[in-house]
Amino acid sequence: MSVEEIQKAKKAVEFSREQLEGILRGRFFYAPAFDLYGGVSGLYDYGPPGCAFQANVVDVWRKHFVLEESMLEVDCTMLTPYEVLKTSGHVDKFSDWMCKDPKTGEIFRADHIVEEVLEARLKGDKEARGIAAQPVEESADKKKRKKKVKEIKAVKLDDEIVKEYEVILAKIDGFSGAQLGELMVKYDIGNPVTGDKLEPPKAFNLMFETAIGPSGQLKGYLRPETAQGQFLNFNKLLEFNNGKTPFASASIGKSFRNEISPRAGLLRVREFLMAEIEHFVDPLDKSHPKFHEVKDITLSFLPRGVQESGSTVPIVETIGNAVATKMIDNETLGYFIGRIYLFLTKIGVDPTRLRFRQHMDNEMAHYAADCWDAELQTSYGWIECVGCADRSAYDLTVHSQKTKEKMVVRQKLETPIEVTKFEIDLTKKLFGPKFRKDAPKVESFLLNLSQEDLKTKAKELADDGKVTFTIEGIEGEVELDDKFIKIEERTKVEHVREYVPSVIEPSFGIGRIIYAIFEHSFWNRPEDVARGVLSFPPLVAPSKVLLVPLSNNKELQPITKQVSDILRKSEIPFKVDDSGVSIGKRYSRNDELGTPFGVTIDFDSVTDGSVTLRERDSTKQVRGSVEAVIKAIKEVTYQGVAWDEATKDLTPFVSQEAK
Amino acid sequence: MSVEEIQKAKKAVEFSREQLEGILRGRFFYAPAFDLYGGVSGLYDYGPPGCAFQANVVDVWRKHFVLEESMLEVDCTMLTPYEVLKTSGHVDKFSDWMCKDPKTGEIFRADHIVEEVLEARLKGDKEARGIAAQPVEESADKKKRKKKVKEIKAVKLDDEIVKEYEVILAKIDGFSGAQLGELMVKYDIGNPVTGDKLEPPKAFNLMFETAIGPSGQLKGYLRPETAQGQFLNFNKLLEFNNGKTPFASASIGKSFRNEISPRAGLLRVREFLMAEIEHFVDPLDKSHPKFHEVKDITLSFLPRGVQESGSTVPIVETIGNAVATKMIDNETLGYFIGRIYLFLTKIGVDPTRLRFRQHMDNEMAHYAADCWDAELQTSYGWIECVGCADRSAYDLTVHSQKTKEKMVVRQKLETPIEVTKFEIDLTKKLFGPKFRKDAPKVESFLLNLSQEDLKTKAKELADDGKVTFTIEGIEGEVELDDKFIKIEERTKVEHVREYVPSVIEPSFGIGRIIYAIFEHSFWNRPEDVARGVLSFPPLVAPSKVLLVPLSNNKELQPITKQVSDILRKSEIPFKVDDSGVSIGKRYSRNDELGTPFGVTIDFDSVTDGSVTLRERDSTKQVRGSVEAVIKAIKEVTYQGVAWDEATKDLTPFVSQEAK
Repeated sequence: MSVEEIQKAKKAVEFSREQLEGILRGRFFYAPAFDLYGGVSGLYDYGPPGCAFQANVVDVWRKHFVLEESMLEVDCTMLTPYEVLKTSGHVDKFSDWMCKDPKTGEIFRADHIVEEVLEARLKGDKEARGIAAQPVEESADKKKRKKKVKEIKAVKLDDEIVKEYEVILAKIDGFSGAQLGELMVKYDIGNPVTGDKLEPPKAFNLMFETAIGPSGQLKGYLRPETAQGQFLNFNKLLEFNNGKTPFASASIGKSFRNEISPRAGLLRVREFLMAEIEHFVDPLDKSHPKFHEVKDITLSFLPRGVQESGSTVPIVETIGNAVATKMIDNETLGYFIGRIYLFLTKIGVDPTRLRFRQHMDNEMAHYAADCWDAELQTSYGWIECVGCADRSAYDLTVHSQKTKEKMVVRQKLETPIEVTKFEIDLTKKLFGPKFRKDAPKVESFLLNLSQEDLKTKAKELADDGKVTFTIEGIEGEVELDDKFIKIEERTKVEHVREYVPSVIEPSFGIGRIIYAIFEHSFWNRPEDVARGVLSFPPLVAPSKVLLVPLSNNKELQPITKQVSDILRKSEIPFKVDDSGVSIGKRYSRNDELGTPFGVTIDFDSVTDGSVTLRERDSTKQVRGSVEAVIKAIKEVTYQGVAWDEATKDLTPFVSQEAK
Repeated sequence: MSVEEIQKAKKAVEFSREQLEGILRGRFFYAPAFDLYGGVSGLYDYGPPGCAFQANVVDVWRKHFVLEESMLEVDCTMLTPYEVLKTSGHVDKFSDWMCKDPKTGEIFRADHIVEEVLEARLKGDKEARGIAAQPVEESADKKKRKKKVKEIKAVKLDDEIVKEYEVILAKIDGFSGAQLGELMVKYDIGNPVTGDKLEPPKAFNLMFETAIGPSGQLKGYLRPETAQGQFLNFNKLLEFNNGKTPFASASIGKSFRNEISPRAGLLRVREFLMAEIEHFVDPLDKSHPKFHEVKDITLSFLPRGVQESGSTVPIVETIGNAVATKMIDNETLGYFIGRIYLFLTKIGVDPTRLRFRQHMDNEMAHYAADCWDAELQTSYGWIECVGCADRSAYDLTVHSQKTKEKMVVRQKLETPIEVTKFEIDLTKKLFGPKFRKDAPKVESFLLNLSQEDLKTKAKELADDGKVTFTIEGIEGEVELDDKFIKIEERTKVEHVREYVPSVIEPSFGIGRIIYAIFEHSFWNRPEDVARGVLSFPPLVAPSKVLLVPLSNNKELQPITKQVSDILRKSEIPFKVDDSGVSIGKRYSRNDELGTPFGVTIDFDSVTDGSVTLRERDSTKQVRGSVEAVIKAIKEVTYQGVAWDEATKDLTPFVSQEAK
């Protein structure tokens, strides 16, 4: 089979998710966790091939990003105290809205319910009008959910109502809980099965809560992202990097999200592996020294404007042009988008099923200034697998304000600059007598006033001779006159520029990427549709070689052991299959595990030391010495050499499978 | 410096924990987590060198164990429902005893308090008697804690009381909470500072609790070990292994332990990385096919008997003899002890500070039948870093009983055997009418009775014509006569043997091992005591190469970039230090990071392409082409070639440091 024939064969049979999932579970790529106890939804275990695949993906990630860019990898705790996540905004904002059915006790996600019910009504309306429902591209998230509205009733709606529904659906990700509640009342949206009224939407925080220590008084959460640990260590990381920016930290580890009702297999889980990068950069200079390396890559982009116009037709463009035209804001963002593309395609993502979609204003996380998602197309729709967000200075700023620790970069200026700003002077000796134990609190509050506040208060002080403040933790208003404080606008020459860096954050959901690759790699042999093949790139395949003695004959055992020892010494992951079944069956089993190479040992091997090497996708076979075959395996797997090139000195061999 | 001179130098200066910890924190190997927020005790983050070191240790572990033995690695969730850990025994038994001081609210570990107070009294007694306190070898755990008893009062005790105290201290790990409470009353043991009475000991479960899902009704915990996930997947793993034993599963991941008051730095933490192996083996045949590979390794053993005699002098013996004399129970346990030794010494553990200690009867975990700990000597005492337990069939049995799922190996017998056992027959048609909806429950209960129960009930049935049972979930007693059931002893010929495998579990605390290696690797250059060196084996060193351009001169930049690119392409982790400080200072900084090699670029490099290679421990330098130098680095780092051998074709170079 030539490369073109393989490509054609891969697309010959229609994709069946049932068959793929049957293989993935049957071969123990993954399984529902606690299966033996009935399972817990949203929790999955990886079995040996899934776990090895994941380890290989992580290994490539580490080399592709951490090693390549000399990133500073850290490993921070998952347990996180309340205070940190309160400051980061997660305690208040990391939640979904849920509605309870008071009769059945069932719990629904409010936005999903509104969306599903209105869509069902619109469909019913179309039926009543005799219009064929248009095949609308559904959001990935929607496709993943089991539909709750089972029956579509053909009821015609007023034209105005249809319009109202359509407007609501277009903005569905942007409503607050209260707004969702109002919609449910206004349009009489209840339990989609029984129609019963639901309780008003309540915020459900998606973090898992726990208590740290024996007294139970220190409330904590399991982290929702690895990012916070990296931000909290910013000063130490900056020092480790000799005070220089830009630099990036990185972290690989589990994060948690207590989903209200997870239902989409590996795509929506409660515990998941993330790999996150926080790239700290000067907000005034987001150029990137290696941008030229990615600028000529052509990608599919779905910018905000296109989506707002109601279209899902991507703009196909080079990264260089996308940055030049400001579709992508800056070089650093563009550089990482390019690197994400290179990573994903290296580990087996089909580039024709990858697009970069910009977040709409109403769907952005609370900390993000801009965000592009790498979305992968699967049978569940387009799935967000990598986020590439510009978190600006949000996180460093809030943690710094909360803890009163500076988190800034100090840049020595080649030419000093004049800076005009408001400054406050305190007559410290007066504070103690007046405020007693509260004095430090008042002083710290005053010294941390923003430029804007200082400007306002300077005027107040000039006009009235006194100013008042409300300070957290102090009862009543604090009044100060010009004996206590002086506020002036001053111009100074500065030799050092201090700034809070912006953060560009590529954030990878490893489990989602892995599932998408499962779909992108799966095909059926056209000559035998029941035979599924997982064509993983050798670099990330769980095992690289299946070692197959032709029969159970004892004569073959010494050379099988010998080849095993050589593979083990070469650190090539392999598996021996000396079960009695036919070679064809064993290869077929192996196709399902995505093992790229088969090495067959037969009776000629005993006499002349030669073995057969089989390539999974083409089923091509070649023959040579053990050393030559292992050399070819290594070249294809780890050095990216093409099969034909790596095996050009080996002898073509007639397939045993055909016999 | 010759190898002997380095060895001598490493021991010349007395070890200072303060200096080591200063370096580890200063170079951001680790830091207290949430430092910015005041920290949370028992939680630590790894910074870039610590994280890289950890990743390398994990990588070696995976190759040394998983790849070498074709183990089945799995990745299971940390979130674990209540039911699973109730069955495993952790809900009831994974706890420490704590006492609260009702006045101060302070919480103490009961066993620690009893131990410390009695020891302080014994010391006071010795002082009163004018006997110099003997330097007793304190337990590691004790040394790690901050002493709470600040003042030793010289009070003479009755001879009998002294004896009683000594007996209690020898058995301190074996007391129940009630017993500890009695001791505290009997000997008037209270708050060690104020003397005030404490509340009676209460069990404090060491698992972190949380709720899964929005209703809050599914109680869960963070796993205390990775093992349970492996046990629950036993049937799937056995099938993956084509039904054959022995085989091993393995898992690397975080586990959690809500310590009452953690205080010993990286040695006692609330969230930690574990690497665990569950080796499933026939309980009747614990031989190991590769035992011969380890049998000649000589180790220090501290078996139970030696400890019971009050001695800490180890028995030095080969593993082969230890198994032959039954000091170690079987070959499989011996094999893993040998493999653990090879792993630990490969990654930098000093073999002279490693011993294998057998658990005493009263300290064994609730699931263990036998256990040997690999203990590493540190400034905190001997620390348990790897446990090697025989969990027998405990876990598979309890999960199987709870879930009514068989978890057994089926072995086809070459010669069928006769088996005599009790069997129960149910007259099923009678159960429905009598028990209605409870019928399946009653039937399942009866079919799962043990041989022992069947024997008892058979006699009862024969004697009385009826038997009674208490069945969980059914009110009152269940009475059945011989119309309902028949119990008979029968002899049958069986062709298949079914058995629950025994589990041998080597369990690695990666963080503890890493800390011990930090201590074992640390020394000071005798010529400059302030200079600390971390002599990590190159294989696990966080970074392998420091690339040092001699000066800031722009002429050196192109070749520095060129060498960087080659290192990056060779996937050798490296760091460039082009800061302005002297070469000596840069090397010294680097010694603290444990980087084994320095590559210096000077003006000769620009003309002839040669660079200098420096070895960290000996400070020896050689010169050669970039290619030759990188080849030497690779050989020493990844292929275990000795420095002298790998650099024999390079030219010796006079040190720049001396100048």
